[in-house]
Amino acid sequence: MEFTRPRGTRDFLFEEMKERKEAESTLRHIFENYGYREIKTPLFEELKLFTTKSGEEIVDQLYNFKDKSNRELTLRPEITAPVARLYLNELEKTATKPIKLYYYGSCFRYERPQKGRFRQFWQFGCELIGAKSPQGEAEVIAMCSDSIEALGITGADVNINHLGIIRGLFKHFEVDTKTQRELMVVIDKGDKDLLIESLSGENPIISNDELNQILLKLIDLVGDKSILNDVEELIKDYEEPQEAFNQLKELVELLDCFNMTNYTLNLGVARGLDYYTGIVFEIYVEGLGAQKQVCGGGTYSLIKVFGGQEVESTGFALGFDRLMNAIEELTDKKEAKSHLDVYVAPISGDVRLKAYEITQNLRRSGMKCDVDLNNKKFKKLMNYADKIKVPKIIIIGKNDLEEGKVTIKDMESGAQDLVEIENIVSYLKEE
Amino acid sequence: MEFTRPRGTRDFLFEEMKERKEAESTLRHIFENYGYREIKTPLFEELKLFTTKSGEEIVDQLYNFKDKSNRELTLRPEITAPVARLYLNELEKTATKPIKLYYYGSCFRYERPQKGRFRQFWQFGCELIGAKSPQGEAEVIAMCSDSIEALGITGADVNINHLGIIRGLFKHFEVDTKTQRELMVVIDKGDKDLLIESLSGENPIISNDELNQILLKLIDLVGDKSILNDVEELIKDYEEPQEAFNQLKELVELLDCFNMTNYTLNLGVARGLDYYTGIVFEIYVEGLGAQKQVCGGGTYSLIKVFGGQEVESTGFALGFDRLMNAIEELTDKKEAKSHLDVYVAPISGDVRLKAYEITQNLRRSGMKCDVDLNNKKFKKLMNYADKIKVPKIIIIGKNDLEEGKVTIKDMESGAQDLVEIENIVSYLKEE
Repeated sequence: MEFTRPRGTRDFLFEEMKERKEAESTLRHIFENYGYREIKTPLFEELKLFTTKSGEEIVDQLYNFKDKSNRELTLRPEITAPVARLYLNELEKTATKPIKLYYYGSCFRYERPQKGRFRQFWQFGCELIGAKSPQGEAEVIAMCSDSIEALGITGADVNINHLGIIRGLFKHFEVDTKTQRELMVVIDKGDKDLLIESLSGENPIISNDELNQILLKLIDLVGDKSILNDVEELIKDYEEPQEAFNQLKELVELLDCFNMTNYTLNLGVARGLDYYTGIVFEIYVEGLGAQKQVCGGGTYSLIKVFGGQEVESTGFALGFDRLMNAIEELTDKKEAKSHLDVYVAPISGDVRLKAYEITQNLRRSGMKCDVDLNNKKFKKLMNYADKIKVPKIIIIGKNDLEEGKVTIKDMESGAQDLVEIENIVSYLKEE
Repeated sequence: MEFTRPRGTRDFLFEEMKERKEAESTLRHIFENYGYREIKTPLFEELKLFTTKSGEEIVDQLYNFKDKSNRELTLRPEITAPVARLYLNELEKTATKPIKLYYYGSCFRYERPQKGRFRQFWQFGCELIGAKSPQGEAEVIAMCSDSIEALGITGADVNINHLGIIRGLFKHFEVDTKTQRELMVVIDKGDKDLLIESLSGENPIISNDELNQILLKLIDLVGDKSILNDVEELIKDYEEPQEAFNQLKELVELLDCFNMTNYTLNLGVARGLDYYTGIVFEIYVEGLGAQKQVCGGGTYSLIKVFGGQEVESTGFALGFDRLMNAIEELTDKKEAKSHLDVYVAPISGDVRLKAYEITQNLRRSGMKCDVDLNNKKFKKLMNYADKIKVPKIIIIGKNDLEEGKVTIKDMESGAQDLVEIENIVSYLKEE
């Protein structure tokens, strides 16, 4: 075949597209019920927006290019940085805080395509800018959880941590920034053996036994709010992590007010990036294997990195493709509804023009209606109507037509009625 | 400012985004009423897809780039070629014809940004593949016209031509392909003086006086179906354009059946590209100046160009940004509705937690509801509620709360009621 789509990309056909639009619509409803409003940023941005946020090494994973005026641009790999730019360009000076915004759009990464990982993928996310913590964080986490539930996905596990605790410990033990970053990457992988090897192997990242022991215990603390006692016990001798710990406790209380009871505290959630400063969370859906993480988010200070005034920001991005995968694999398949309400079938060629007229009237009355355009035989039209599972058909016959009537057939029950042409719309709408 | 969006691109903020989503939704309804189903193709494609369709010279206007494996890719400049590719990859062998599909998405062109022309822009379009002409064409044109009307845009002028007429004349006078192409480009510009200059100036594109006279008369034929007589008269001595002329006549009859009476026959509509073979149409909206063309479409044979089996295809693309511009400039501004149904305002800090609970219940009952997250003073909350024109507020006071009640105030009438907490949802939904 001469023309194919680029490696790692997808075409979406009718049924899949419909399911994606329905999920999109469900998410929009939830986000808008929480007072969020949609924005849209360009598909490409200046390259430096993302290297400033994530470091030069991100370039390896980008679709970056120079435009015809030698500008360094890139297809966006995510939408938090563009939103921060938009905030600085358009909202910082004028908008009443907190600002609640959401986005849905595609992102791009250049990496080896594999199951569930594509080079063009979609993110549905939000940013809450300028709200106080922890109530803002509690609300964001509740919305995120509601969103996944509204899609019919059960068994989603919301894992929450406060990075200030581990950063407090780093501060106490005077761990330098580079070492911190290395450690956070290892912790983010969630591989305990690797962490043990990194801490106590031949070339340990840090060689402070006291800290190592605490870290190994800390990342194992996973459970309901009762583990707060264990955290408290573990860090009780150090002052630096106490403020973060208190914020985490306060968040837990607030989650109750937001009717959010189904979550896990998980001191091993790290998030890879430096700009996360406070609460972070990730959502895992069991049964999805390596693609189980459908959401990541937290409180960050990106806007300051970009040269703006410090402002508290919390946000998350749902991996839309993984959510679609979860719906496909884990929820009951709904019977696909026909894409039409009614199909118009002329019995013979001499009534075709009248069939077009009737079809057109139905469409303009707001019904999804189609008619044969290929002069097919009546039997073929009936086969097609069966195939697409249309609930009703209108049979146009010459004799009926001479009396100003058509036959309307219910395809499920097989019942049929003779209906005057001027009453077709009201007949169909009454049903 | 350190970070800005790339030249020629846009950010869409809340109100504008909402208007765009509403227009998008209106168009979806119309297209789906006509039996069309949505598909989506990748944002970038192989470069050769577009050079095969439009020639190498299109590269100057593309965002083309090499990926990290040296593949020649480009951001798509339009969506007809990707759809033809998708048809060949996924649908040619399996789908029942006719296939009705639509798309909405962004396209990219590298050219000097100017009023109404952006480097990232949106197209909403459709393709009808494998339907018979002219009934397929009549239906497509009717849908296109309905779409623009549904957006509230009046004064759209649908201009229809059949390129087979002029191509028949070219054939009769044995005009070579290169010359044909040059002439079509001049005609497509719609500048009659330029055409006269091109035909009878110092270096005429063709020097056949008979043909030149016919062409100058032909492109002036613009009007309702009565001009068909003039066309007939003009071409009566030549056999080659007769078949196309008969198709145009048949289309005109069919447009009546599709209740499409408001159009202009315009023998000067050319469309720039070679692969248009039959009926073509363009829609102009008066009052938009140089940006008046909001739609272009027609019958084309692109799929054969891409190596597939010949199949009749008709399609059009609406310039979504120009339509938004038309709505903005030419239709009455609707009063913007608040993005919330209700706002929850605690009078004092000690009832905040209860306010969160009540807010959360309203959201989960499907209402768009927000609450203060910043511990603002009650007066500030009232100012904010006024500013966002929310229709209802719920005032949470300590004394009311002790009796299990809240105050619900209608912001327009000023009327307020004491309502039991468990009745809030039913109270608000009854209204």
